[in-house]
Amino acid sequence: MKLTQENIDKIIKGDKRLISRTITYIENSEDDKHEILKALYKHTGKAYKIGITGPPGAGKSTITDCLISLLVKQGYKVGVIAVDPTSPYTGGALLGDRVRMTDSSLLENVFIRSMATRGSLGGLCKSVNDVCSILDASGKDFIILETVGVGQSELDVAKTADSTVVVLVPESGDSIQAMKAGLMEIADLFVINKADRQGADEIITGLKNMLHLRAPEKHSREIPVVKTIAASHKGIDDLLSEIVRHREYLETTGMMLKKKRAQIENEVIEIVETGLRKNFWTDRNRQILEQNIDKILDKNTDPYTLSETLFGL
Amino acid sequence: MKLTQENIDKIIKGDKRLISRTITYIENSEDDKHEILKALYKHTGKAYKIGITGPPGAGKSTITDCLISLLVKQGYKVGVIAVDPTSPYTGGALLGDRVRMTDSSLLENVFIRSMATRGSLGGLCKSVNDVCSILDASGKDFIILETVGVGQSELDVAKTADSTVVVLVPESGDSIQAMKAGLMEIADLFVINKADRQGADEIITGLKNMLHLRAPEKHSREIPVVKTIAASHKGIDDLLSEIVRHREYLETTGMMLKKKRAQIENEVIEIVETGLRKNFWTDRNRQILEQNIDKILDKNTDPYTLSETLFGL
Repeated sequence: MKLTQENIDKIIKGDKRLISRTITYIENSEDDKHEILKALYKHTGKAYKIGITGPPGAGKSTITDCLISLLVKQGYKVGVIAVDPTSPYTGGALLGDRVRMTDSSLLENVFIRSMATRGSLGGLCKSVNDVCSILDASGKDFIILETVGVGQSELDVAKTADSTVVVLVPESGDSIQAMKAGLMEIADLFVINKADRQGADEIITGLKNMLHLRAPEKHSREIPVVKTIAASHKGIDDLLSEIVRHREYLETTGMMLKKKRAQIENEVIEIVETGLRKNFWTDRNRQILEQNIDKILDKNTDPYTLSETLFGL
Repeated sequence: MKLTQENIDKIIKGDKRLISRTITYIENSEDDKHEILKALYKHTGKAYKIGITGPPGAGKSTITDCLISLLVKQGYKVGVIAVDPTSPYTGGALLGDRVRMTDSSLLENVFIRSMATRGSLGGLCKSVNDVCSILDASGKDFIILETVGVGQSELDVAKTADSTVVVLVPESGDSIQAMKAGLMEIADLFVINKADRQGADEIITGLKNMLHLRAPEKHSREIPVVKTIAASHKGIDDLLSEIVRHREYLETTGMMLKKKRAQIENEVIEIVETGLRKNFWTDRNRQILEQNIDKILDKNTDPYTLSETLFGL
């Protein structure tokens, strides 16, 4: 891909085809990808990033789809990054895979990208940041980051997002106690989806009780719990209102600036550490590693001694 | 902690107090931790590692507890590492937190350690490997790695374990389709826990159908699906039999050797990359990072240029 001013201008104007090509180029870790990202970076900073996470089957994709429709109706441009390692959508999913295109404004104002995370050596966060920057530079008002699970990828997304929405269903009741530590820390707001099912009120009560147990000084803001039935588009207005309220909260308390700083720090660390890995694992070092595996297996050496050897070379 | 032959001997003999102290010492990343791990490494290689994973609330801890009892009854020594970021157990949970000590043989032959994963920069896998090595060297026949989610931490554990057990419940039905890609790849066997609940047979049928769709050349072995009701200790014998069968399968096909090689490779990479990060983030580089965050915020520079500056120093 050529880094011409023409291409940069096209991306900034939201040319879908070029955005898509650029993301693919960057995902493939081409050598000059930093030059492209540098050129785009000065155009970033406008998009508000919404992270949507929760267990598989909670309805994250449906909620995302509803949010897209609502935001587009309100005149916004929306980017979506689905960093769901279990996502049935693979590669560069087109909009049509996700949202029924009954409305041409959806086609014009939405860009959806699915990202595979599997198999990469801790590569999730770095790529997500890069793709976020591209979408941000392309004029999106909102970027939705959709991810799954209660593991590391979720934490990474929480680091990248401005508002993190944790989606649960009434059936998650059993697991709330277990999820406590993990979710309380990252959730800016909770959604109970499929709220017409049995157990919805119990899970909300349970969640609210738990939220009240938190240390007051750390959590001056009450974490809202929103009911939705995304499959029939119910509750999405409330959800968006709460996201907007959270954004205002961040802005009026000065916490947004703190968050932006932390996001930048995180981004630089990711870029540096990806570079460190790439520089270290030369063909020669890879070869030395391969040659010593059987020696370790036979206890003629050990992983710690081998890594010291690799460092000493 | 002093690296004396006396201390090493104590660990090898299974001295709980010293094992616990050593793990804490290693988790705190003390400078000479490699020396301790080197001294222990030649005593490793006997333990069989069982990974237990699945969504929160599936009953992983109960299944682990049942497996512990069964293995100890059969005369084995068992180590448990709970790498659940959402675990309600914090720090170095003692056995009593997990298993009711009605039997003194449990107290003698079991060592349980909970590990926090939150907040560490990709530190999960490295520490898990180190703790595994310590428990392995201390004479454990089995090490159970218990983790949660469908995210990165789960994949890391699958890389470390010899047999990976994925625990689901009938209520997971909705999400199987969504979890497909993620779980199929790592599961050596499936457990449907709480199998007396509605929907158990449906989920088993769904799972088996999906398993049959897989490419035959990659999966010559049929992935078993075991029913359990762990809360009333049902089905655990079957589960252990299937684990033993998987172990035999690995050993007779030569796949165990391949697996061990991949585990060692993974371990060395983790040690090296932890070292790379540690060496790079000197006080000076951290300071340069901090000083440039506001410049990035003001678009006077960008994360890519800053990381190049850091590399060039």
